[in-house]
Amino acid sequence: MKQLLSKRIQEVPESFIRSILKVANQPDVISFAGGLPSAELFPIDALEKACAKVLKNNGKQALQYASSEGDDQLRRWIAGRYLSQQSLTISPNNILITNGSQQALDLLGKVLLDKGDSIVIERPGYLGAIQAFSLYQPTMHSVSINNQGMILSELEHVLTKHQPKLVYTVPNFQNPTGVSYSQQNREQLVTLVLGSKTLLIQDDPYGELRFSGQKKSNFMSLLPEQTILLGSFSKVITPSFRLGWVVAPDWLIKPLVIAKQAADLHTNYFSQRIIFQYLQDNSIDLHIEKISQFYASKKAAMMQSIKQYFPASVTVAESEGGMFLWLTLPVGVSAMALFDQAIKQKVAFVPGKPFYIGDDEVDNTLRLSYVTMDEVAINKGIKVLADCINQILANTKRG
Amino acid sequence: MKQLLSKRIQEVPESFIRSILKVANQPDVISFAGGLPSAELFPIDALEKACAKVLKNNGKQALQYASSEGDDQLRRWIAGRYLSQQSLTISPNNILITNGSQQALDLLGKVLLDKGDSIVIERPGYLGAIQAFSLYQPTMHSVSINNQGMILSELEHVLTKHQPKLVYTVPNFQNPTGVSYSQQNREQLVTLVLGSKTLLIQDDPYGELRFSGQKKSNFMSLLPEQTILLGSFSKVITPSFRLGWVVAPDWLIKPLVIAKQAADLHTNYFSQRIIFQYLQDNSIDLHIEKISQFYASKKAAMMQSIKQYFPASVTVAESEGGMFLWLTLPVGVSAMALFDQAIKQKVAFVPGKPFYIGDDEVDNTLRLSYVTMDEVAINKGIKVLADCINQILANTKRG
Repeated sequence: MKQLLSKRIQEVPESFIRSILKVANQPDVISFAGGLPSAELFPIDALEKACAKVLKNNGKQALQYASSEGDDQLRRWIAGRYLSQQSLTISPNNILITNGSQQALDLLGKVLLDKGDSIVIERPGYLGAIQAFSLYQPTMHSVSINNQGMILSELEHVLTKHQPKLVYTVPNFQNPTGVSYSQQNREQLVTLVLGSKTLLIQDDPYGELRFSGQKKSNFMSLLPEQTILLGSFSKVITPSFRLGWVVAPDWLIKPLVIAKQAADLHTNYFSQRIIFQYLQDNSIDLHIEKISQFYASKKAAMMQSIKQYFPASVTVAESEGGMFLWLTLPVGVSAMALFDQAIKQKVAFVPGKPFYIGDDEVDNTLRLSYVTMDEVAINKGIKVLADCINQILANTKRG
Repeated sequence: MKQLLSKRIQEVPESFIRSILKVANQPDVISFAGGLPSAELFPIDALEKACAKVLKNNGKQALQYASSEGDDQLRRWIAGRYLSQQSLTISPNNILITNGSQQALDLLGKVLLDKGDSIVIERPGYLGAIQAFSLYQPTMHSVSINNQGMILSELEHVLTKHQPKLVYTVPNFQNPTGVSYSQQNREQLVTLVLGSKTLLIQDDPYGELRFSGQKKSNFMSLLPEQTILLGSFSKVITPSFRLGWVVAPDWLIKPLVIAKQAADLHTNYFSQRIIFQYLQDNSIDLHIEKISQFYASKKAAMMQSIKQYFPASVTVAESEGGMFLWLTLPVGVSAMALFDQAIKQKVAFVPGKPFYIGDDEVDNTLRLSYVTMDEVAINKGIKVLADCINQILANTKRG
């Protein structure tokens, strides 16, 4: 019966990361592979209090079907947060609550993309976005990013040649590289997109997890008419609730709500109420500060071990926050070969390969998450990786 | 920028029900319009206990990212339930947890349907299924149902002429009509589909809410190789959690999991754990029995009022459970006209029109939900409808 499958599902890239994570999640493995936040700081007690309060005060309502748009109070809170944190005036009516920002990608694909439409993704880019969009069979153009952001000459070329419907970006502490677009890069990027029929998506799951450096402009403030914002509670409260949102202009929000309704009627309403209650009774700023400090110290530990053990020919992309470091091995040293060596010694990470689309592959990059392992494990794991790299380098010279 | 919208989203029928519900949900309206379960019986206290237990015993895990397939324990519970209730042997590996069974429809559309593929839906049929599938731009063929189930001659014609990829059915207490397919109808239907390249979807949100009559065979027992089952906790525990599932054969479950991952990574894991805990600590059978008795008494009250007030020319479809009654007005009496009259007197229902696709419209049918109003309101509301019908009939005769 396999011939019944749609063409679109046959075109989705297999998630290589999925198979890696199956190995990496075994308990005796030092894993830098996951994209998970640290469970150490989940606000378990506060959420338990919020659950009890919601059920006691509004049980019937919190357990009933709810609106596709999402809880009004939560949408107002999100709008308020954009104002207080980023000086952005956003109407709650332009916010749709989704199952994590991942679902916003799916809904955007659904309402915007016809087969063959051009879109731009980052190179390397977030695999979940590549997967979500690929189900709508667009033509994907990847534009390289470096420590400064998107390579604007590449972007300009694609904009001119292909008139993409959307440009997907993670400008703060990007997944997989951890880098942020510079202020200048953002401003210049916007001038290229301004006035075209191209939408700019700012996906921002890590934006609040800044350890150093200055906050940069949100694309919404630079290009309000053409920007779509995605946000999420996954990295700052809990990912298990699958609570995110999309901010979109009037002409787009209604089709998104229709697509949301067709997809699953609405996002888990009980969880929306719990999160709103949690936000009423607790300081999210203090909580985010706690997470940022915790992650910053782990990042520092990993950087120190890298400096201590790794050959100088391995470079690390600059990062001021988030969860990831992006390493480039000397050309000719395969990250896949390194993975095969390291996993034998129970250390895991994600090779860069799955973050590039098509034949467009680079084989000497890799992503390390620093947030879920403790500092002893970080030191030990980095030492193992360094030994493996040195061994591969030695073999290469000999060969 | 509206020209950026995809063709598929432009083809989705507007949810007329949505606009009706906005009117119907006003507090002074007697509403028979909703598709909501009664909030009176939500197990609020038991769910609060389950929340506390999950967070106390497994907080870190329950708040972390989880697998796309869904919680293993919950999937085993569902498999066990199919065995105990319907004598069906189903592997937990063939079960995918979804955001209500609504999301299963979206995922099935995504992995099975290319533009122009033929599918069969019931006439009248569940609007949410029509919406979900329509986003994948199939050619929809509707096959009429009556008190016995699908009209098999119509089905046979469509099967032969169009080789549809799937036939979507709600064989127990269907939405909108409340009718169930007879045992004979199921057996004959299956012989038509057997051996073809057509899948049979049994959507079963109301199946456990039987008030009278005999349980009928699940299509999975009659046609195991070609049947897909959908299920949901929405009508038996709470809809707000958006917890449902799909049972699919091996060749289909993996693509569904890939589509699920691309859509939203996984279903709210905290809620999966709460429901599993609730099911461990409470008797779902007793709870379902309570709901069924409660709904049965409301149905009886509505039937009695209908007999008392309605002209004999209004017919009611036979129903042995679920949430809805389906009425046919005398030909020439428009349910839309009735709606316009009734809403002025603060009584709401859903006219049948949105449940038929295309030009295929019938204007003299309507759906009444009996589960959310109390018996006094039911009596009062039905009397208002009867008065409106009699008035329209009188005007028609005069005209």
